[in-house]
Amino acid sequence: MISPFFFEKNTLSILDQRMLPEKEVWIPCTEADDVAQAIRTLAVRGAPAIGIAAAYGCALAARSGRNSLEKAAQILIEARPTAVNLSWAVRRVLDALTCVPESGLYDTALKEAGEIWEEEKRANEAMAQIGAALFPEGKASSVLTHCNAGSLATGGIGTALGVVRKLYEQGKLSRVYMDETRPLLQGARITAYEMCRLCIPATLITDSMAGWLMKQGRIDAVIVGADRIARNLDAANKIGTYSLAVLARSHGIPFYVAAPLSTFDPHIATGAEIPIEERHQEEVLSFQGCRCAPEVEVFNPAFDVTGHELITAVITEREVLYPDGGGLA
Amino acid sequence: MISPFFFEKNTLSILDQRMLPEKEVWIPCTEADDVAQAIRTLAVRGAPAIGIAAAYGCALAARSGRNSLEKAAQILIEARPTAVNLSWAVRRVLDALTCVPESGLYDTALKEAGEIWEEEKRANEAMAQIGAALFPEGKASSVLTHCNAGSLATGGIGTALGVVRKLYEQGKLSRVYMDETRPLLQGARITAYEMCRLCIPATLITDSMAGWLMKQGRIDAVIVGADRIARNLDAANKIGTYSLAVLARSHGIPFYVAAPLSTFDPHIATGAEIPIEERHQEEVLSFQGCRCAPEVEVFNPAFDVTGHELITAVITEREVLYPDGGGLA
Repeated sequence: MISPFFFEKNTLSILDQRMLPEKEVWIPCTEADDVAQAIRTLAVRGAPAIGIAAAYGCALAARSGRNSLEKAAQILIEARPTAVNLSWAVRRVLDALTCVPESGLYDTALKEAGEIWEEEKRANEAMAQIGAALFPEGKASSVLTHCNAGSLATGGIGTALGVVRKLYEQGKLSRVYMDETRPLLQGARITAYEMCRLCIPATLITDSMAGWLMKQGRIDAVIVGADRIARNLDAANKIGTYSLAVLARSHGIPFYVAAPLSTFDPHIATGAEIPIEERHQEEVLSFQGCRCAPEVEVFNPAFDVTGHELITAVITEREVLYPDGGGLA
Repeated sequence: MISPFFFEKNTLSILDQRMLPEKEVWIPCTEADDVAQAIRTLAVRGAPAIGIAAAYGCALAARSGRNSLEKAAQILIEARPTAVNLSWAVRRVLDALTCVPESGLYDTALKEAGEIWEEEKRANEAMAQIGAALFPEGKASSVLTHCNAGSLATGGIGTALGVVRKLYEQGKLSRVYMDETRPLLQGARITAYEMCRLCIPATLITDSMAGWLMKQGRIDAVIVGADRIARNLDAANKIGTYSLAVLARSHGIPFYVAAPLSTFDPHIATGAEIPIEERHQEEVLSFQGCRCAPEVEVFNPAFDVTGHELITAVITEREVLYPDGGGLA
């Protein structure tokens, strides 16, 4: 299984996902700032993965003592605004350090970061089982996914792609269709890369083709990850997810969100409170140095919010949540 | 006004739209085969524009006498399958030559091609007037368009973009949002280029953002062109159009198709009979030599069909057609 990072010799080595699938370049991070920069620039992305990376970033800061910890935590939390896993993981490491003497900060923080990672891996496994059980037996389903909610987004087998993988193992998957996911092509670059490595039958499409596939009866279900989920189960995820949910509803196709409990934000009642990151226009105007468009105004929200009324079910590591069931207990 | 081609000294010079907006390269075509190749490779694209180009291609074949005409016509018609303008224009030139002596073939064919072009220009102007009249007075509307249905697709002021231009002239346009239109980015490369030249307020988005803009109330209407329209007003257009129509319907936003009568196919009752071109996987796997994805299976339909029930109105040069009015009289 490919991992978005590994920790060794006081260094978090982060796979630079911007270079995939062309190159596998590892970025050595020895300070919290390095990790924040990798998160900010999307070298590492995916809500659970940036949570884990930020936890290790905290640990690297803890190595320099308690003084630098609070500032580093703030920098890590502010690296990206939408995924709640970032602040969740950082706060968890800080909490673990509350009564720890200066000499024990680093080891305790490292241990906590490692535990967060292990828990995310187990959560992925549990979600895969619980999610796959929602699909009919004795039938090979065709599933559409968006962006990348796999190993490189989570550090485990993935959220949405964990379910896809389990469906494949159980003989319940005919094919996964992958939206390329402009502007940054996480679907084309990363999901396609993961599915190829796993030898799962996969077909790449542009984002604009999803509705036409649904119309032709070629999609049995849509499954995506999430970056933040409100108490009422409104879910923020990669831009384009909302359109897919509307299209799925219009075609009578179930729309599933798979996300660990670390992606739930208990502080917000609805998706209207989720901050949506707007990124630089250059992401849309060019691709890997190739110009796509003249100098023109660009709107580039990185996420959108899918209302709970469009979501068939949210798959967590603990249970399946149904929006009409009133959200998270 | 930028033109997709010009005819001079027995040569149809075609602007290579694949190079836009980076370079303006003109391809000199002195034979029908050159024109067919330019159509096949998308150097020239857009249903009305490829019709006009094919008419000139016929004229170039007529220069070599009647023997080569029938074969050249077939090659031109088969250059692309979806847009009906191609066969419509070629047959019109052939019909004009029926009773013409060998010595007059070239001049007559050239005159007919020129007339087709002039008629398309006038049709664009008429559509712009008729289409703009559908928009409310005293309000600046925000319009979303897909692909490119402007000057470079038509040889005139455009179909959908002709309406946009007229709205702007009449003070009824606040902004045009342009889908980039993957895989070949006609929206980013060509529509953005045209809107910049006309100084029309325009914002580029990825295809996946359209639904989210609608949800936020930022789109008052969607307007697109078409490649072939059936008798019941089902309309084939660039892949992604169908998704937009479903999204527009879900958000209560009017969805307009602007197309000249040359785009109507009187031989087919419904859109189910329209052949949908599937293009090479390389269009999705890479962009201008930059690799987007590993070697993976790709589905790459170039068009989709929007059912008439999703279309608010079809704007032609003669009148506005309402699907519930039963289609083309």
